[in-house]
Amino acid sequence: MAGIISAAKPPAKQKFPSTQSSERVFQRDMPKTLSIWVNTKLTTAAAEQLAAGVVPHKLLIAERSAGNLTAGSHDPLLAQADVAFGQPDPKQVVDCSGLKWIHLSSAGYTRYDRGDVKTALASRKAILTNSSSVFNAPCAEHVAAFMLAQARQLPAAILNQAGVRNGSSMPRAWISPTIRSESKLLMHQTAMIVGFGAIGKHLAAVLLALKMNVLAIRRQPHGDEMVPTHGVDEVDRLLPTVDHVINILPASKSTDGFFTAERIASMKPGSVFYNIGRGATVDQQALIIALQEKRLAAAYLDVTDPEPLPPEHPLWLAPNCHITPHTAGGHADEFERAVRHFLGNLRRYEKDEPLLDRVM
Amino acid sequence: MAGIISAAKPPAKQKFPSTQSSERVFQRDMPKTLSIWVNTKLTTAAAEQLAAGVVPHKLLIAERSAGNLTAGSHDPLLAQADVAFGQPDPKQVVDCSGLKWIHLSSAGYTRYDRGDVKTALASRKAILTNSSSVFNAPCAEHVAAFMLAQARQLPAAILNQAGVRNGSSMPRAWISPTIRSESKLLMHQTAMIVGFGAIGKHLAAVLLALKMNVLAIRRQPHGDEMVPTHGVDEVDRLLPTVDHVINILPASKSTDGFFTAERIASMKPGSVFYNIGRGATVDQQALIIALQEKRLAAAYLDVTDPEPLPPEHPLWLAPNCHITPHTAGGHADEFERAVRHFLGNLRRYEKDEPLLDRVM
Repeated sequence: MAGIISAAKPPAKQKFPSTQSSERVFQRDMPKTLSIWVNTKLTTAAAEQLAAGVVPHKLLIAERSAGNLTAGSHDPLLAQADVAFGQPDPKQVVDCSGLKWIHLSSAGYTRYDRGDVKTALASRKAILTNSSSVFNAPCAEHVAAFMLAQARQLPAAILNQAGVRNGSSMPRAWISPTIRSESKLLMHQTAMIVGFGAIGKHLAAVLLALKMNVLAIRRQPHGDEMVPTHGVDEVDRLLPTVDHVINILPASKSTDGFFTAERIASMKPGSVFYNIGRGATVDQQALIIALQEKRLAAAYLDVTDPEPLPPEHPLWLAPNCHITPHTAGGHADEFERAVRHFLGNLRRYEKDEPLLDRVM
Repeated sequence: MAGIISAAKPPAKQKFPSTQSSERVFQRDMPKTLSIWVNTKLTTAAAEQLAAGVVPHKLLIAERSAGNLTAGSHDPLLAQADVAFGQPDPKQVVDCSGLKWIHLSSAGYTRYDRGDVKTALASRKAILTNSSSVFNAPCAEHVAAFMLAQARQLPAAILNQAGVRNGSSMPRAWISPTIRSESKLLMHQTAMIVGFGAIGKHLAAVLLALKMNVLAIRRQPHGDEMVPTHGVDEVDRLLPTVDHVINILPASKSTDGFFTAERIASMKPGSVFYNIGRGATVDQQALIIALQEKRLAAAYLDVTDPEPLPPEHPLWLAPNCHITPHTAGGHADEFERAVRHFLGNLRRYEKDEPLLDRVM
């Protein structure tokens, strides 16, 4: 039900900054009690944690709470908000001049990465943060799971146990020789992480512990990355040299169709392609052909275009193509962790400290 | 075919020690040309690598080359050998007084860990080494694959794609909410490695990179392990406290049935059990019951008792019990790596240097 939830208990301590000078002008006018609009889907436990944690501020529960983490539509309550937590409608964000800080419940922020939103936020010195910290670790674990599952041939073992071999119904058997000879040691193999942000860093640490050779591609190499990192202009030179290509590219105009048919064709024979970025960054038809021709040993996809992937889409049936249904960031307590992350940023906001995961 | 393969080309350099004093008395009598008996299964490439690499020594190919890495039976040629590489018959090893160094092609050496073999080897100052270095990394990768597959719910996704859900035939679907909510972040969870040798160390490095809490159990803690390490007497206190129990125990009298029904019953509800040690170290009936009662979230077994596991054995059908058919150490180039490891030790042996992976 929609409505305003007032703070349930008095603040333990007044943490607000006084009128001291700050380069962030908007903070001078910050009300002591903020109105915090929320439309993110929450478990009961997470909702209680949020209600208790926002004290002394007011919660404005959206008319239509988002059915999932990326939904969001126009909501009259947003106009009263100082802060938004969830997925506010991007168009409405432009008009809500009182909105000084938006904390997205997702790591992705493509919907907000557009001229009118950027201009509006900049003009009122508003901040956009995301929930990258909540999803980095599970996304990195997901890629590591994909890579190790391929290395140890877990799909073949799991399907054999269920009575499926080479796509056909077969009695389960002790298929040790096949699986052993098709397993490959990750140690000393080379992995290339394309899109090297927080997920990539977490993943790189794991791959280095596995004694892999790791390199990265990012738009603007900083020079202080933990692994050799190259600009996008080097991707064509490097693609044919690596055993594992890990796509963590977000959706954007510049990444749309990034993995072209030519780039897929240039990959090392027997290499493996992973995608936890966005489906639209890949020429899926070219990927299917590379798998059918066994030029790639396998593909592991957490994202596809479209999503949900229709049950009869050819990607499901491409040889050695393993699909998880956009679950890379998910985890049992993700809503509780998302609320803790927001509340951590709220405490920083109260103290006029820099916020975590700021993207605008 | 059986026979003696003479060295194909002359030695590039004579590397043998002269008659210099050495605490290893047997080396003084070491012939310049050794007779190296081999019965390990090899690919053509690995066999060629071995033939070229043993120069200037003689290769004695066993009458019956082992059909697999643990086989081995009486072979008359062994009596002529100075060195054995593979799986010589333990009983025959006792009688072959010329045999000064045995390099096993496996990591396991339970068959040789018996009084008569130990006494015979000690009396002639002979050495037993194994191929632990060849199999440590793939075994550690296998456990990491198991743990991450469980964390990211890969079995459910793989089976869904094949049209199997909850053990029944079901059209594939985009089962994102189920998988997300059942995925669990490994970060900050606790893993206990039971049997902390070379595999455990490699694994611990990976789990630490995943930001897990890691502890270990070993017969004799050294005090300088990379993770908190406890003696076996602490296992009962610790078992109920950890999220992941990783069994890497070898087969031996002291480990037989180590994971008793009581110990399995004491594990933390919702925890996960992994076994890449030996099947006989676990009360499998108790494990099946714990899985049926959902006290354990899952079990991942690479070893069972017996092996091969018969197609209708109840372990195959226990809920959330995932089985790989003793493939943890296997990898595409395992025979080439095993030969390289042996040749590395042969170069050490020629120079009277300490051998790697010495177990007796």
